[in-house]
Amino acid sequence: MDSLTPQPFDKGASLAHRYGAAVPAAGPWNETIARQLEHRSVRAYKADPLPAGTVETLVAAAQSAATSSNMQWWSAIAITDPAKKKVLAEVAGGQKHIEQCPLFIAWVADMARNQRISAQEKVEFECMPWLETFMVACIDAALAAQNAVVAAESLGLGTVYIGAMRNDPVRVAKLLGLPPQSFVVVGLCVGYAAETGAGEVKPRLPQATVLHREQYNVENEIAERHAYDAEMANFSQRHELQAATWTQRVLNRLGPIKSMNGREKLRTVLAGLGFEIR
Amino acid sequence: MDSLTPQPFDKGASLAHRYGAAVPAAGPWNETIARQLEHRSVRAYKADPLPAGTVETLVAAAQSAATSSNMQWWSAIAITDPAKKKVLAEVAGGQKHIEQCPLFIAWVADMARNQRISAQEKVEFECMPWLETFMVACIDAALAAQNAVVAAESLGLGTVYIGAMRNDPVRVAKLLGLPPQSFVVVGLCVGYAAETGAGEVKPRLPQATVLHREQYNVENEIAERHAYDAEMANFSQRHELQAATWTQRVLNRLGPIKSMNGREKLRTVLAGLGFEIR
Repeated sequence: MDSLTPQPFDKGASLAHRYGAAVPAAGPWNETIARQLEHRSVRAYKADPLPAGTVETLVAAAQSAATSSNMQWWSAIAITDPAKKKVLAEVAGGQKHIEQCPLFIAWVADMARNQRISAQEKVEFECMPWLETFMVACIDAALAAQNAVVAAESLGLGTVYIGAMRNDPVRVAKLLGLPPQSFVVVGLCVGYAAETGAGEVKPRLPQATVLHREQYNVENEIAERHAYDAEMANFSQRHELQAATWTQRVLNRLGPIKSMNGREKLRTVLAGLGFEIR
Repeated sequence: MDSLTPQPFDKGASLAHRYGAAVPAAGPWNETIARQLEHRSVRAYKADPLPAGTVETLVAAAQSAATSSNMQWWSAIAITDPAKKKVLAEVAGGQKHIEQCPLFIAWVADMARNQRISAQEKVEFECMPWLETFMVACIDAALAAQNAVVAAESLGLGTVYIGAMRNDPVRVAKLLGLPPQSFVVVGLCVGYAAETGAGEVKPRLPQATVLHREQYNVENEIAERHAYDAEMANFSQRHELQAATWTQRVLNRLGPIKSMNGREKLRTVLAGLGFEIR
């Protein structure tokens, strides 16, 4: 789909898909925004290869995202090798779409490049071992990845983020040959959605819950959450997800430590990969 | 600018602006991607107000970004109050564009909402105090913010991220009435660029440096860095920035601890705001 060809879009319909009954009073609109609203995660892919130069296009968009002080503390590893994707799918608890997608991009918080510059230029980097520095690297990787997602979707491609790379950062680092002080923050599947893969747009919390004016405000939060629970209960019913309401999913996800799949050890694991995070 | 009106765009020119001589072999292209490539940070704004409903549009785009397990661990605070923007500009070391822009959005990593759900539903949340959870909240806030940036730029608006909100997270939290377990990850100025505000597209590292194939690879990294140093030296000369080369800027930014403006204390400061980050 070439975006220069005007596509029909319907602001009201897009907002209804995203918010159900709680439609916000959105203003200016265009095709780029309409496409952002239609985002959904794609978990089944066709085997079709991507057009030549696709990864270069996506990384050009990624590199065009803002980066703190132009430091660019991230790398991307483009993976097409079936054997590597098989291991990554295993790390992710058997997510088959990692094997299916023609392109998997691992987004790396990469302080190793700085470590090399420090050694090559013989300057000690006092700013490396801090939470702030670690966090900026993760955020810059996220900004880059999200720009790649927008670019991919504008080309008619589907994507899904794979946080489960963090189930075993050491195995992933070994597989991809990462040096100390680098790790895969998140993976991304890219490809053409199979007919069964492109689900419905998932409703989000009412804007009133997440958007505050001048000051944090939770006045109607409980009522808004109950309204959203009803929206998500309907959505779950249509898609046979396990938990009926959003509240129940939050309780399941944040209640028992076992829902973290071992990721509560991340700080220790990252220390082993050279991140102090003081 | 309505994106339904076809705009001229030139892939080769966009890539040359972003990469200088090291133009990557990018493939598919369209207007959305062209606009992403043209991103630049805007640090001077006109006083012109935004069209009605702009913040609702931007937050609808932000909420349409992926969010880990649909948990939505972020909030946005829209700030237009001049008195509040004045304080935020002070926190950021006197960045005047925070006062100038008609809309400032504070992107909040918001675990406070979960704390309230835990209390309201009488379920203990074992997954709260971990680095993994903190990191996901920051990343989700970043994905949301970046979608808002793409939407804003598609509407002809300029933006700039303000990481300096983290110079004093406690003062920012008090100003915005944030409860424990929430903090402003990053701010964002939004508005129409003043004529002096929209600078040139900033060159980035060659793709060969940040994009790896199947495996991390630094084979030609030093030569690539020197080539980028030359690009950035030219850019700096055109824009009278202090440091001549990118390497020098990295040394300045990561070498002496004073360049962190106190942000090395972030972990301690966030502990005071209720984030354990184990």
